[in-house]
Amino acid sequence: MNPARLFCIAAALIAFAAGNISAADSTAIQSAVRAVLDQQVKDWNAGDIEKFMRGYDRSEKTRFASGGNITLGWQGVMDRYRRTYSDKAAMGTLTFSDLDITVASEDAALAFGRWHLKRDKDEPSGLFTLLFRKTPDGWKIVHDHTSAAEKK
Amino acid sequence: MNPARLFCIAAALIAFAAGNISAADSTAIQSAVRAVLDQQVKDWNAGDIEKFMRGYDRSEKTRFASGGNITLGWQGVMDRYRRTYSDKAAMGTLTFSDLDITVASEDAALAFGRWHLKRDKDEPSGLFTLLFRKTPDGWKIVHDHTSAAEKK
Repeated sequence: MNPARLFCIAAALIAFAAGNISAADSTAIQSAVRAVLDQQVKDWNAGDIEKFMRGYDRSEKTRFASGGNITLGWQGVMDRYRRTYSDKAAMGTLTFSDLDITVASEDAALAFGRWHLKRDKDEPSGLFTLLFRKTPDGWKIVHDHTSAAEKK
Repeated sequence: MNPARLFCIAAALIAFAAGNISAADSTAIQSAVRAVLDQQVKDWNAGDIEKFMRGYDRSEKTRFASGGNITLGWQGVMDRYRRTYSDKAAMGTLTFSDLDITVASEDAALAFGRWHLKRDKDEPSGLFTLLFRKTPDGWKIVHDHTSAAEKK
């Protein structure tokens, strides 16, 4: 086979693979997304909202939806966190569980799970659905829908 | 250029396009997803939960998350709707607004928006995040995270 033809076939295979995620790629994407969430939990539990915010895409389109309200933009989302969780006691200790990551494409994944805050006075919990996109800075949350369970 | 080489280049271009959604494809996907939601609103407002359920993937993996609870499987999701909205009065009149559809790949899209129910006694509302996948039966919801706004 001549080299030009071989190159052509290789190019077609590589391009085709880009539209069809292999199991290995899918596992790698899930690990990358999980690593972002693990880091967010560490940063939250260190009381550092600014570091926690590195998990979100630093974009004006980044969206946080909760309790009927929509907050737009990375800065707006951070401001909201700072208002809602004004100190370490309010932040409490965060854990995520039942995490399920669906890979939608090479640059998009959906993370779904439960959040739980252990605080001195209460233990709020609920569910989250996050859309991650692969950006030049790594995998980042572009859409966050967080909801609280009814208080018992 | 010889035909074999031309074929190779065409194959590479088609395969490459599969991994990179064109603006036209993206618009077509958004229209398809919007059509499913429009049909769901019609079916809901006709008091027909079974028809409304055609918007969801008829799979055991279909997931509905709300108020801290996770319901798994198409049948389970329908049973939950039937329990929660037992008659036409409870179903009320549904509208969706602020709909935003993010195309993640050729077979995945995220729909986000507000829901509102007009009923004789109250008007509950809130937000939803839906993951749609393209299935042999068309675009279907595989993950639904619905939350209610705090009652005023």
